[in-house]
Amino acid sequence: MSKPALISVDWGTTSLRCTLVAADGTILDRSARGPGINPLPPDGFATTLATAIASWQATAPVPILMSGMIGSRQGWAEVPYLPCPADAASVSAHLHRLDAGDMGDVFIVPGLALTEDDRPPEVMRGEETQIIGALALSSATASRTNPAVTELFVLPGTHSKWATVTGDRITSFSTYMTGDVFAALCHHTILGRLMPDDVATHDPAAFAQGVRAGAADGPPGALLNRLFATRTLGLFERLPANSLASYLSGLLIGAELAAATSPLTPEAITIIGDAELSNRYRSAANQLGLPATIAPTECVVRGHWLIARSAGLLKAKS
Amino acid sequence: MSKPALISVDWGTTSLRCTLVAADGTILDRSARGPGINPLPPDGFATTLATAIASWQATAPVPILMSGMIGSRQGWAEVPYLPCPADAASVSAHLHRLDAGDMGDVFIVPGLALTEDDRPPEVMRGEETQIIGALALSSATASRTNPAVTELFVLPGTHSKWATVTGDRITSFSTYMTGDVFAALCHHTILGRLMPDDVATHDPAAFAQGVRAGAADGPPGALLNRLFATRTLGLFERLPANSLASYLSGLLIGAELAAATSPLTPEAITIIGDAELSNRYRSAANQLGLPATIAPTECVVRGHWLIARSAGLLKAKS
Repeated sequence: MSKPALISVDWGTTSLRCTLVAADGTILDRSARGPGINPLPPDGFATTLATAIASWQATAPVPILMSGMIGSRQGWAEVPYLPCPADAASVSAHLHRLDAGDMGDVFIVPGLALTEDDRPPEVMRGEETQIIGALALSSATASRTNPAVTELFVLPGTHSKWATVTGDRITSFSTYMTGDVFAALCHHTILGRLMPDDVATHDPAAFAQGVRAGAADGPPGALLNRLFATRTLGLFERLPANSLASYLSGLLIGAELAAATSPLTPEAITIIGDAELSNRYRSAANQLGLPATIAPTECVVRGHWLIARSAGLLKAKS
Repeated sequence: MSKPALISVDWGTTSLRCTLVAADGTILDRSARGPGINPLPPDGFATTLATAIASWQATAPVPILMSGMIGSRQGWAEVPYLPCPADAASVSAHLHRLDAGDMGDVFIVPGLALTEDDRPPEVMRGEETQIIGALALSSATASRTNPAVTELFVLPGTHSKWATVTGDRITSFSTYMTGDVFAALCHHTILGRLMPDDVATHDPAAFAQGVRAGAADGPPGALLNRLFATRTLGLFERLPANSLASYLSGLLIGAELAAATSPLTPEAITIIGDAELSNRYRSAANQLGLPATIAPTECVVRGHWLIARSAGLLKAKS
């Protein structure tokens, strides 16, 4: 069996996931899921991490690489953002070392920021690691030998990130508040009134109808009008109450996909995320004629491993 | 003193306002503000109205005209929508008479609906009366003698209504969920995290910055990205926390104004609403070079009076 060489720590707002990795990248073990940074007090991070990885660090400790909101103002330490373009090499050159006592070498991977003067800033924390991992894992890797080819990576969710990658460098990215807006609309506007209280099952036809409506041409403010159809289609019984959430989901995802891929259709789109949401995005992308594939799982672990290797941290435990 | 000839009842989701009107349209008296339809049980409407207007109906009762959500499924009686085009004459021909016992002739003004097959339905209840009143009151009346001139009327709010009026007929309209979305974003998404808990004062410069950003060209989904600037401009201290709500308000109103007035700039826009919100919309419209004026107050009362006159209901009380 391979010896441990790295602990990969994915620590976001709502959960902590630790993975024990060998020098060749093989996954050796996984911890149970732990608490996200949200409920933890400022002095609770070290103890929580130590508990989660206790069984792995009993003998000679291996380096620990963390990414996600753990590096934010609300996390263990606020780590300055790196500018774009960024890749495994530039990120590994700016790892933030923590004083973590007995735990040995503990680092936070810096997030990325775009801070051009002529547009509002953009930020990500954690997604840079996933993209670096997906770049190595995804099936589109072959075409990446041509540095002129530009790909898009999307990490759908509460705040979807769309990253432009040229060669193996993240050159730009944008945030779409799709998931956050969807939840707020369903639970805190008139659109939720006609939706059933319990979670509705996904209706692919209503979703596709929403994608079509959301992706149609129009100015940005048209979205504020199109949303209201979720109510009137229900009021006039053109859609059953059970399908309204699927319609609204399609409307927002369709609008996001059309905006994030315009004006030029990208040569490849890689979706990084959980299976259900990734499938929804791929279905919407296919409907719109966009070339989307879903990345393999384990992008975070692969990203940490690549960054650790680039930083010269990988020495098999003896 | 003029004799009473009509009671105008503006009964929406959150409030009831009654006005006593003379045969020539003069306002004679106003009731205290009463409860909206939301907290009332189905059998509570008649009693609530009777109490509100008791002092006026003591002798010979005058006709009562009501508009707003009182005519919805959640109101006193669900009144079928009228199709567009609509005007005072078509609305007055479809008043819904209630059986209201001692109160005499009580009518609900029907709302309007657009139900074309190729787009989602649109509905309004109450705004048709305000527009009919504003058409008679507004300073742009002179140009309305030319039936080829198309004007826009906007009733900003939770669900802003934009109506296209040709001559004196409402020919089309659209709903923008601007106010509802603004409140949900401030209170139930990440955008509220950096905003102070107490109500921030209006920052005209941040509002104007938001208007510019919201009205810029782009596809509908761009709005899901632009919203996020409310967070990052705060994170990077390009805007103070106190100004973020004004920025977001400008962003949404700018997007709404640009979308509702494209692709052709209208010849006149009349804003109907409370003073503060109307001023905000006029300021945004002026910034975007749109010809907007604010309608006089009392549009509802004037609308009820015109509709009652058209229905032959106005006979001065003897």
